[in-house]
Amino acid sequence: MVHELKVPDRILMGPGPSDVSSMVLRAMSTPLLGHLDPEFLEIMNRTMELLRYVFETENALTVPMSGTGSAGMETAFVNFLEPGDRVLIGVKGLFGQRMADVAGRLGADVHTVEEEWGRPIDPARFEEAIRRVKPKVVAVVHAETSTGVRQPLEDIAALAHDHGALFLVDCVTSLGGISVGVDRVDIDIAYSGSQKCLSCPPGLAPVTVSERAREVLRGRGRKVQSWYLDLTMIQEYWGAERFYHHTAPINMIYALHEALRIIREEGLVERFSRHLRLGRALQAGLEAMGLELLVEEPYRLPMLTAVKVPEGTADAEVRGTLLARYGIEIGGGLGALKGRIWRVGLMGQSCSPKNVVLFLTALEDVLRERGMDLPPGAGVARAVEVMEEGAH
Amino acid sequence: MVHELKVPDRILMGPGPSDVSSMVLRAMSTPLLGHLDPEFLEIMNRTMELLRYVFETENALTVPMSGTGSAGMETAFVNFLEPGDRVLIGVKGLFGQRMADVAGRLGADVHTVEEEWGRPIDPARFEEAIRRVKPKVVAVVHAETSTGVRQPLEDIAALAHDHGALFLVDCVTSLGGISVGVDRVDIDIAYSGSQKCLSCPPGLAPVTVSERAREVLRGRGRKVQSWYLDLTMIQEYWGAERFYHHTAPINMIYALHEALRIIREEGLVERFSRHLRLGRALQAGLEAMGLELLVEEPYRLPMLTAVKVPEGTADAEVRGTLLARYGIEIGGGLGALKGRIWRVGLMGQSCSPKNVVLFLTALEDVLRERGMDLPPGAGVARAVEVMEEGAH
Repeated sequence: MVHELKVPDRILMGPGPSDVSSMVLRAMSTPLLGHLDPEFLEIMNRTMELLRYVFETENALTVPMSGTGSAGMETAFVNFLEPGDRVLIGVKGLFGQRMADVAGRLGADVHTVEEEWGRPIDPARFEEAIRRVKPKVVAVVHAETSTGVRQPLEDIAALAHDHGALFLVDCVTSLGGISVGVDRVDIDIAYSGSQKCLSCPPGLAPVTVSERAREVLRGRGRKVQSWYLDLTMIQEYWGAERFYHHTAPINMIYALHEALRIIREEGLVERFSRHLRLGRALQAGLEAMGLELLVEEPYRLPMLTAVKVPEGTADAEVRGTLLARYGIEIGGGLGALKGRIWRVGLMGQSCSPKNVVLFLTALEDVLRERGMDLPPGAGVARAVEVMEEGAH
Repeated sequence: MVHELKVPDRILMGPGPSDVSSMVLRAMSTPLLGHLDPEFLEIMNRTMELLRYVFETENALTVPMSGTGSAGMETAFVNFLEPGDRVLIGVKGLFGQRMADVAGRLGADVHTVEEEWGRPIDPARFEEAIRRVKPKVVAVVHAETSTGVRQPLEDIAALAHDHGALFLVDCVTSLGGISVGVDRVDIDIAYSGSQKCLSCPPGLAPVTVSERAREVLRGRGRKVQSWYLDLTMIQEYWGAERFYHHTAPINMIYALHEALRIIREEGLVERFSRHLRLGRALQAGLEAMGLELLVEEPYRLPMLTAVKVPEGTADAEVRGTLLARYGIEIGGGLGALKGRIWRVGLMGQSCSPKNVVLFLTALEDVLRERGMDLPPGAGVARAVEVMEEGAH
């Protein structure tokens, strides 16, 4: 006998998925329309319109791919690169590494600009490499989920375009939390995931493509290696043609539509300032507790904070106690940072004053219990101070 | 101002998606766990166990891929074929064609055995081709969604194995509606979609892989071209290692778990016999109305019936009236059969006596209105007769 699902209460403060509003969960459980139903086509249109709003773009080709953020990454590479094409990728964390892996698998000639995990990449290093490599595509991660680093984009965008390259950006963790500004920054290809600052369940990867990049797509010499992620066909399902490609994940699109509607209602400006204010409050609180942050202040992401695990503290046990006692999920480190950092998310629905003070309180409890000498309540007091400053 | 979703009532009797039980919709809207939460890992284990039950297999590697059925197809090809490998594909409809397209994109040496759309392929034709081509993989669609044809598998499986090839089967439309019998038939690689006879929303592609095929996977000379669909990594997330690959679509897996639980509760034997009984009733009813079916009796799928559009009848208008007046969705023809057939689904939750009589009644109304001379009530009367026979 298999029983119905029973799931404990969680507060998702890791690197994603984030908590999802009950309104989104309710929308997701709406009975199905067929994927070619005229009423569903309307919902698709509105979803594209809302995606353009959060991407800050007028790009016609702005669609959710039917997979998670990594499918978005693969879409971005396999459609705009062909075997032998040169690509220059900024690598400063796991997701930059993954980009290089994905590009290598399609037979691209992969070049990288590398930086220590936890630091952004100096645009000057891109400049040198772009001159040397002459890439067709320059790619970088906006918000590196493995480190909490924000990579400034403007200079790299300009350099890429000055040298005739397309500019490709991973904004899985940034979209909906800080401004991505696809048109303002002049990004050609951007992808994201539904489960971070959009606060929709995982399963969709919003993608947007500039006219310049669509021209490259039209000029391809061979078919896209992935049938499933082939934008030349997918744009004809989401576009006026409505050609059947694959069965869209109906309920996931309902959920995304509702998550985006909620964002539109809040407004991007208000949403970004909420993330900034509460992210700073959390970071100030952690420092007031005597903990050290991985990333230098100007490059810290508000929605994802990397805290160094204090010397002699058992990383996994602290996370386990937070989960078991308080239902709070945070993330551990990946790759080079495994066991060395905690990743604390304040994304979308999870980004609330309640979660900031709860997490700081819970962490203080767990660390004290393990013998750390912490100034009582200092973290929360400082966080509240910063929240209030930020509110003025 | 973007409003909340409002969606009209539909009865999904097309080629999929099918109607989804309110229990599945409710399970899907359960608040999220993280994709590495110990409680979620338990749900993954149970989901794999339930998938083994519907696939009728002991295969350890039996997982839902994070995409729709077409992602399952791509998974099946890109993991087990490398550029230059010979593959033999049975093509008797759109999804066989798609297989050849997918295999061609990865650089496989693609050979086909073709048959007219609407007929199964004679195993003798596979025998000749297998001897000639010496393929690494022999692939065929079990239930061709574009035609409603059931392809017998046993003889082809034996031929493939006699000649050292892997046997790959698309059971997108068959799984959960007729027996696929992965272990009994000795299928090496099978994939499906969540939105047909499993009656779960679209978005997941269950896949199962035999030990023989896993050996081929282990022996690959190069990385799988798709990072997202790479089973060598995905098996380590779903297996004991629990290595993070991509963020699983949490709520879709909740939904699949519940849909499979409902199937387990009904029992496969009972479920197959329900599909068979009601499929036969529908088909008998349509014939009693004087309509012609595309497929010969022994090869008709119970869950998907292709009816020829009567001479002089406007295909799309009939479907439009069924949708607008009765909320009933059926499918049109694809490719060579566009405008020539209707595809009527009785899949999973949609497969009920209520839907059989409702559809026959509604179709009679719409066709009469368009001037067809039909024996009044003959379709329903005959369908009810067959349902009652089948119930004994």
